[in-house]
Amino acid sequence: MPVKNAMIRIVEHVAKTIEKLDDSQLDQMVSSIENSEKIFLMGAGRSGLVGRAFAMRLVQLGLTAYVIGESVTPAMTKNDLLIAISGSGETDSVVNAAKTAKGVGSKVLAVTSYPDSSLGKISDHVVVVEGRTKIDIEKDHLKHQIEGTHSSLTPLGTLFEDTVMIFLDGIIARLMTHLKTGEMDMKRRHATLE
Amino acid sequence: MPVKNAMIRIVEHVAKTIEKLDDSQLDQMVSSIENSEKIFLMGAGRSGLVGRAFAMRLVQLGLTAYVIGESVTPAMTKNDLLIAISGSGETDSVVNAAKTAKGVGSKVLAVTSYPDSSLGKISDHVVVVEGRTKIDIEKDHLKHQIEGTHSSLTPLGTLFEDTVMIFLDGIIARLMTHLKTGEMDMKRRHATLE
Amino acid sequence: MPVKNAMIRIVEHVAKTIEKLDDSQLDQMVSSIENSEKIFLMGAGRSGLVGRAFAMRLVQLGLTAYVIGESVTPAMTKNDLLIAISGSGETDSVVNAAKTAKGVGSKVLAVTSYPDSSLGKISDHVVVVEGRTKIDIEKDHLKHQIEGTHSSLTPLGTLFEDTVMIFLDGIIARLMTHLKTGEMDMKRRHATLE
Amino acid sequence: MPVKNAMIRIVEHVAKTIEKLDDSQLDQMVSSIENSEKIFLMGAGRSGLVGRAFAMRLVQLGLTAYVIGESVTPAMTKNDLLIAISGSGETDSVVNAAKTAKGVGSKVLAVTSYPDSSLGKISDHVVVVEGRTKIDIEKDHLKHQIEGTHSSLTPLGTLFEDTVMIFLDGIIARLMTHLKTGEMDMKRRHATLE
Repeated sequence: MPVKNAMIRIVEHVAKTIEKLDDSQLDQMVSSIENSEKIFLMGAGRSGLVGRAFAMRLVQLGLTAYVIGESVTPAMTKNDLLIAISGSGETDSVVNAAKTAKGVGSKVLAVTSYPDSSLGKISDHVVVVEGRTKIDIEKDHLKHQIEGTHSSLTPLGTLFEDTVMIFLDGIIARLMTHLKTGEMDMKRRHATLE
Repeated sequence: MPVKNAMIRIVEHVAKTIEKLDDSQLDQMVSSIENSEKIFLMGAGRSGLVGRAFAMRLVQLGLTAYVIGESVTPAMTKNDLLIAISGSGETDSVVNAAKTAKGVGSKVLAVTSYPDSSLGKISDHVVVVEGRTKIDIEKDHLKHQIEGTHSSLTPLGTLFEDTVMIFLDGIIARLMTHLKTGEMDMKRRHATLE
Repeated sequence: MPVKNAMIRIVEHVAKTIEKLDDSQLDQMVSSIENSEKIFLMGAGRSGLVGRAFAMRLVQLGLTAYVIGESVTPAMTKNDLLIAISGSGETDSVVNAAKTAKGVGSKVLAVTSYPDSSLGKISDHVVVVEGRTKIDIEKDHLKHQIEGTHSSLTPLGTLFEDTVMIFLDGIIARLMTHLKTGEMDMKRRHATLE
Repeated sequence: MPVKNAMIRIVEHVAKTIEKLDDSQLDQMVSSIENSEKIFLMGAGRSGLVGRAFAMRLVQLGLTAYVIGESVTPAMTKNDLLIAISGSGETDSVVNAAKTAKGVGSKVLAVTSYPDSSLGKISDHVVVVEGRTKIDIEKDHLKHQIEGTHSSLTPLGTLFEDTVMIFLDGIIARLMTHLKTGEMDMKRRHATLE
């Protein structure tokens, strides 16, 4: 049954990734968020949606968060943090955004599978989250041409995106503890209309 | 040349509407915006886009504005204002949003062609902006069936939407004066990334 | 370490949910998608983002999908399917959308934790995905008041939203097999600009 | 009364712009739209919102239109047209998008005040729509520093954005005639849910 097989594969990938997460990178991410005036989220495609889901929770925690591309997003300053999400770390629009953010003195934290990518290199901080990114896909494609093996149950950036979704919810759990914010506080700040 | 004819028709409609705007309604709108903690914008379809364009300028003026449906939109309180845009004043999602906003004690200001509409009736304040709304369209359709006359150069809500776009930019001009906000202040607050 | 604890809790919840998924509901969902002309996605807040992530993949599979609230979303007809996502099945905007869709003869499939909810009752098909929904939160809140126990590591709809994200990626895996669509086909259809 | 003064200034600007529009550029734009398989809209900030409002009408005309950044936007091919909107023609994200579109063989049509801008130069076709763009603002700023004159009633890109909104509605009027599409056809294709 491909539905359940794919779900199991995703769950196993997330479970494996949890072990590999670097505690010092997590500490760095949490303290960067807590010490920034405003937090901006940026990602292309599904990574962007995962960033939005995180921004919603940050707002419910009482923090000031914005999503690049939404209407009410203000100017960035040197007291702010851009969290840039890209599996490959090579997505043009995300790399360009990170450069612009650096140009105005904002800090940049990359969530990526490739710390040595263009995005990773220009970021102040990197959190490595493993996934099967677009680069892997090309390898699989080559393998497919040579061996005729079937392609993935978790196409394109699926593993990265789903893992980052859960990872960012983990960050929320820690921020709740740090900020002593209960769930009822979050519900109270939840959008009245959505 | 239909392009220019349609543009002329729109410009004439806006010009005519300027004369009909009620000064006391404009005063009310400006003071409601200035006296609210947060301003929320809501509209369906193209009216929603016009509301977003207004929200961007409010943020650049240093005010706190949000758009219903975007990620970072927080809870509404009794110190807030919902600006609900609907030509007919009968758009379900907008009327429902206005009811919910009233339910949490927020003020509601309607921008509509029909002050006696469902939206107009439940709103605290109404600014009437004329347009050829969905209700007119049905009359035109009937006329078309009877007389075979050709349909509009400015289909559906076009006249309302374009007029409201310009009207809201007029409100921005007045807020700039009131708040003593210059264009350079607005540029400084303009989104770094968009 | 709350980050990893929360992630483990989410992973365990998803793993448990996989076992509880009803195969006949999954079959029904896949065949509904394959037999519909257009597929519309609807959800409020983070459930809406998860729906968008699914819509992106449907487009990459060569299917015709739209998201309620985006600019290019067309009219719905009796040959179409609305997939409505709501943990509680009581989110006003989603229930109203489902009613409107039924009104024009479109089919509605609910993804919800509560088959007996308002949404579940008016839908043609229901897929039950467990989560800790807003209703559970109120119970937890009561418990918190009585026993003073600490609130969740996975606040509000987190478990539902993350589980549905992975569940919908499972549906994609099955559609890939059914439609004989390889990953390279999906990459080819991937947005050039995003 | 600044509200009405600003509205009058906008209306006068649009009226003046109508006269300056180049008929052959309009012909080119209409035929490019009609001869393309898919039409993609791109703009940053308020120009992007104006592009979305146009995309909605294109869909209602029965054409296939997408907005860059929305979920269901597919790959671009050599049979497609990107309409890129930028007053200055120098907005990074828009210029980059235009380059990427050219790279996959798609046609690019620029709507800009500056045909010699970076965007104008790489585009296949240009429609010049006058506005007071970001470049003018810098001149005004200098003037303000020297002479202390007051800043604009129509800050930043307001004149360009409002004029393009109306201009694109003019293009819709012409497409209605060409495609023999009545308003009732458009209403029929209007989003059921929005």
